[in-house]
Amino acid sequence: MNTATREQGNIIRYERGIISKITDEIVTEHPVTLKINGEEFATLVCTPEYIEDMAVGYLASEGVITRYEDINNLWVQEDEGFVHVTVDKWSPLHRQMFSKRYVTSCCGSSRHGFVFFNDARTAKVLQNISVELSFDDCFRLVHDMQHGAVTFTNTGGVHNAALCDRNGIILMRMDIGRHNALDKIYGHCLKNGISMEDKVIVFSGRVSSEILLKVAKIGCGMILSKSAPTALALELAEHLGITVVGFIRGSSCNVYTHSHRIVECQDQSVQLRPEME
Amino acid sequence: MNTATREQGNIIRYERGIISKITDEIVTEHPVTLKINGEEFATLVCTPEYIEDMAVGYLASEGVITRYEDINNLWVQEDEGFVHVTVDKWSPLHRQMFSKRYVTSCCGSSRHGFVFFNDARTAKVLQNISVELSFDDCFRLVHDMQHGAVTFTNTGGVHNAALCDRNGIILMRMDIGRHNALDKIYGHCLKNGISMEDKVIVFSGRVSSEILLKVAKIGCGMILSKSAPTALALELAEHLGITVVGFIRGSSCNVYTHSHRIVECQDQSVQLRPEME
Repeated sequence: MNTATREQGNIIRYERGIISKITDEIVTEHPVTLKINGEEFATLVCTPEYIEDMAVGYLASEGVITRYEDINNLWVQEDEGFVHVTVDKWSPLHRQMFSKRYVTSCCGSSRHGFVFFNDARTAKVLQNISVELSFDDCFRLVHDMQHGAVTFTNTGGVHNAALCDRNGIILMRMDIGRHNALDKIYGHCLKNGISMEDKVIVFSGRVSSEILLKVAKIGCGMILSKSAPTALALELAEHLGITVVGFIRGSSCNVYTHSHRIVECQDQSVQLRPEME
Repeated sequence: MNTATREQGNIIRYERGIISKITDEIVTEHPVTLKINGEEFATLVCTPEYIEDMAVGYLASEGVITRYEDINNLWVQEDEGFVHVTVDKWSPLHRQMFSKRYVTSCCGSSRHGFVFFNDARTAKVLQNISVELSFDDCFRLVHDMQHGAVTFTNTGGVHNAALCDRNGIILMRMDIGRHNALDKIYGHCLKNGISMEDKVIVFSGRVSSEILLKVAKIGCGMILSKSAPTALALELAEHLGITVVGFIRGSSCNVYTHSHRIVECQDQSVQLRPEME
């Protein structure tokens, strides 16, 4: 862990009636601005480690690049908080559509739950996903991530994401920003050409639509979390072919979508709804 | 509570070896797009209640309005997820500077921790803040919010914010988006002309720089949380004159900034650092 991720702070501690001045570790938070071909594109407020991976993951997530090789040059100006990227295929459409609402012609709500234009463009229905887990695998992977997270951070207030296969954690990233932790994983996978068909994401927080979309863009077929998903995330998961297992606590959990990837659910009697075609 | 904030979902529940199909409440998440004078400004993904308040709070927070009276017309198209606003003073500067990095001329890092241009423009150093709490007040207010939150939501995965004074909770709002809960409070206060000098915000999550800035914009001099603040949030709090009390758990907590508003800390011997001039 980079020492830039925390610093010492002077605080007043109150505990059972006793007031004392102590120094404690405070988690840091830094702005990183992405400049594409010299133009300011977006500023991410993040935990300053694995910045290059985060930038690569973010650019892919927003559809600026489709593969790592689309980047001609990438230069991290760490102290100042800038990442300078040059790409060949950079169209004004990217900027125009950035964070624009995706509204179909018939009515206000979009098909399949997409909110933003770029998401509808970059999040594809997953195919060739072979991963299968048992309930015990789910409990073990969540336990492993929580155990690893405690080791890495004792400052509180960070999100953790882990890329796993059935055998355990392959890669774990933390960030004070929910999406950044996933972008750091995404960037690493793109740079190293890691295959996603047998992988699972374990995430420390709630599965919102934004998190679900990141998982879809990474190309991962399953997300595990100790927290709850939202209805919009489940609508997207249903459409995009992603298994969501939430509320994983101790030896209990909920399977929300695409339960065929949980081995104990493969008995037809526990199928919730018709699976994706 | 609006029934739009949750819906029923079919899920597979696994508990101590038993698999069952159940229906459970799932928290909803809806896009709300703000259009200013007909032009798309921003899309907030939120819990769909108190949408008008949220829109008003967000517009003030981004500096589009400075008071509620700056809005000529506001129309919520709830099912479609649009809020149409007309204002007189709407300059292209707002759009240009929206989410633009605030970088001062001398070096990459900004003064006092501001990251975004609009924040540096709209977050003012607080004055005329008279609020004072004891440690017991802090514990009681956090307890009251947590108790209220449990009553309101059993779906997990939402953030809660409460506007309080020393006597208790005045207003509580929840949202799946961290900032939205605070924008809902901000909008309510602007519409109803609520004075902030004796108020405190209690927040369920981590105090990041974005949350601290919202509190500053609302004009509140103190924030209490059971979670941790970030270093950047504390830098901003120090500059803007806001007391941050975090890690409030049971009968212990940490005071990070401007401790003079905690009565037990008013003894000079526990002053952490020189107070604001």
